[in-house]
Parts: sequence; structure tokens; C-alpha cells
Amino acid sequence: MGCLNGLFVVAEGGEGAGKSSALARIAPRLERLGHAIVMTREPGGTPEGSALRSLLLASGRPTWESAAEHLLMAAARVQHVRRIIRPALERGAVVICDRFVGSTIAYQGAGRGLSQEFILQVHAQTTGDIWPDLTLLFDIDPKIGIARSRKRLHETESDEGRFEAVELAFHERVRACYLEQAAAKPDQHCVIDASGSQIEVAERAFNAVVGLLDRRKA
Amino acid sequence: MGCLNGLFVVAEGGEGAGKSSALARIAPRLERLGHAIVMTREPGGTPEGSALRSLLLASGRPTWESAAEHLLMAAARVQHVRRIIRPALERGAVVICDRFVGSTIAYQGAGRGLSQEFILQVHAQTTGDIWPDLTLLFDIDPKIGIARSRKRLHETESDEGRFEAVELAFHERVRACYLEQAAAKPDQHCVIDASGSQIEVAERAFNAVVGLLDRRKA
Repeated sequence: MGCLNGLFVVAEGGEGAGKSSALARIAPRLERLGHAIVMTREPGGTPEGSALRSLLLASGRPTWESAAEHLLMAAARVQHVRRIIRPALERGAVVICDRFVGSTIAYQGAGRGLSQEFILQVHAQTTGDIWPDLTLLFDIDPKIGIARSRKRLHETESDEGRFEAVELAFHERVRACYLEQAAAKPDQHCVIDASGSQIEVAERAFNAVVGLLDRRKA
Repeated sequence: MGCLNGLFVVAEGGEGAGKSSALARIAPRLERLGHAIVMTREPGGTPEGSALRSLLLASGRPTWESAAEHLLMAAARVQHVRRIIRPALERGAVVICDRFVGSTIAYQGAGRGLSQEFILQVHAQTTGDIWPDLTLLFDIDPKIGIARSRKRLHETESDEGRFEAVELAFHERVRACYLEQAAAKPDQHCVIDASGSQIEVAERAFNAVVGLLDRRKA
């Protein structure tokens, strides 16, 4: 990756896998170890991405065709990579990103039936050489994950509600696709059993990141 | 184009070529001849496209990377084709669209240096078989066109100001690219000398559309 000295860590996983809360736990611990941490998420992460996130997720708004949804996600990613992720990696930071192109492959590809080859073409043409050094795949049975996230929804009215309303079969395709991505590139993935407590899940994620940082130093 | 019985007419051209005012003149004349006319434009044409148009053109907002701009245009086009253009063509209407993929090839491709092959791939993968039956290319020397549109800007504060602020060399690349597109598919293009009066330019566009409608009937 040329002059990119940082480490690019991506968290992926289905609804209710607890990845966002795990990231919130591990970021301060990594900072205490002396690492510069940039926490970010997709879609979002830039003013433009946040505007697109609102367009995509706003309830009551007109819905988007799957192909259009993919292009908006990819547009947000262009802004995000060029303005946030790449500059942070050039500074040597550890970038921890909640969702990246793996989500597009799982959700728009396996979930909604778009061509995975086309998704990868768009990524390669617009985002170029930025791929995660490590993907933490928070893996959970969709039945458990959806139940968890519905419980959370009733408590907090998350704006991810729109995605969480789709059916079980969809989430099972998404999970299978994530596991295929991990199997295809085992060196860049760490599959985390996300069925435990939040503290256990965060601990596994923390150990995976620290393990990679240690191997880098060695 | 299968069950698409209508006629898909696209107006393309540089700033100040007068295409929008020509379209406003020819639409009612075509209606008086008994044709069902659907007038639309890009980016826009649907609620989602209009929202993206606002994001792209709003002044004072953060600017978009060229690659992201292309993806947003393509996303707006997916919505536009599936919700407006294709259904209208299926009903047998004459759809007159102010800008289409030719603008993306000219502006984002030749103008801003994106791969034209990639632009065509995205179009083919997301929009499929919808290509204009006739493109009216309103051709004008950019020096004249920009002067015209600046004059208009001072009078009306058009939201196209953002596009019109870029420099002459850019507009010359755009013009050359439009003329290449017309030369590559002469049967589907009518190059209209847009240097005359609004009435003259509209008359040429009207004759080109009526000529195609007559050939279709024959």
C-alpha cells in the first residue's frame, strides 16, 4: 500500500452482532497502549457520507433501487477513503471502520442479488488500493442477532431500523457471504464468535487487533 | 428494446447551448401533433434524483470527488430510468430528457478524466438496455455558450452555476467529446448548430424529432 504506514481495521457482521459496542470498548484500550486511533463508520464518516446516510435510511422517504443504493454507498466510500481513511493511514494511525466494502458485497451482493463482480469492479475503479489489513467478522446466528437488535430498537429507535426490518432469509444469505469472504482471505480476517457477552466479544476483538499490531512490530 | 414502444429523445450540449429553452418550445408543439410527451431532466426527474441534485449543486456545501460525483449521477439515473423513463416508454410516450449518460461521458469522462469505459460499464450494469433513440446535440463554441450562460446567471441565479464556473479548457474537452459521441453513432444523433436565435435552434430540434417520428410511422 505504498506510503500507508497505518493499520486499517474493519468491523463487519450482521445485525445485532454487537460490533459497534465492541469497537467502542476497544478503541480507548488501544489508545492507552499508545496507538493513534481513528474511529469511523459507513455509510457516513464525512459530511457528504452522512448526507447520503440520511437519504438512504430516512424513514418515510422514497425507497432506492438496489443498484442505486450500491452506487450511493460507493460514492460515500470514495469520499470517506480519500478524505478520512487514506490521510489517517498515511499519518500512521490505526483506522477502525464500522463496515466497509465487505458489507456492500454481503448486503447488496448476496442479500439483494447485485453482481459481486460488479461491486468489486466499482471498488477497484473508484477506491483503488485501499483494502482492510484486518477484518473483524462479528459472526452471529441471524435469529439471535435480529432478536438482539429488535430489543435495542425498542429502547433507542436506531436509524438502522430500516435495514433491520428485512427478513431472516436475507440475513442468512448475508451471514453466509461474510463467512465466504473470510474463508477466501483467512490471513486478513478474524472471525469472532459474537454470541457471548459484550465484554467477551470485545475482548476477542481487542486480542485480534493487538495480535496484528504485535506481529507488525516484530 | 423489447416492449418499449415509445421514443426516447435526449438533449445534450454544453453550457449556454440553449437546450432547455429549446425543449420548452418543442414539447407543446409535439403534444399538439398528438404525441404523449414526458419531459424530464438529469440529475433529477425523481424525488431521489432531486435530492441528489441538491447535494451535488448546493453552493457552500462540501465538494464531491469526481468519482463520487459520477456514482451519484449514476444512482440518480437508476431511479430515473426505472421509475420514470422505462414506464413512460412502455406506455408508448415520447420521453424528452434534458441530459443523460452522454453528459456523464462528456463531463465526468472527458472533462474530469474518469475512465469512459468504466462509465459505460456502470451504465450497462445498472441501467441495462435503455439508450436514447435520438440524441439532439446542441453544439456551441464554449466561448459563446459560457458568455450566454453567465448573462443568464446574473439575471436568474441558476443552480447550475457550480458547473458553469469551471474553465474554458474543460468545456472544450466536453464539446469535443460530445462531437465524438455523435460521430461514433451518427444514426442516433442530430447535431444542432446552437449559435442561432432561440427560435431557430428550437425549430431545428423540432424538425429532427418530427423527422424521426415520421420515419417510425413509415
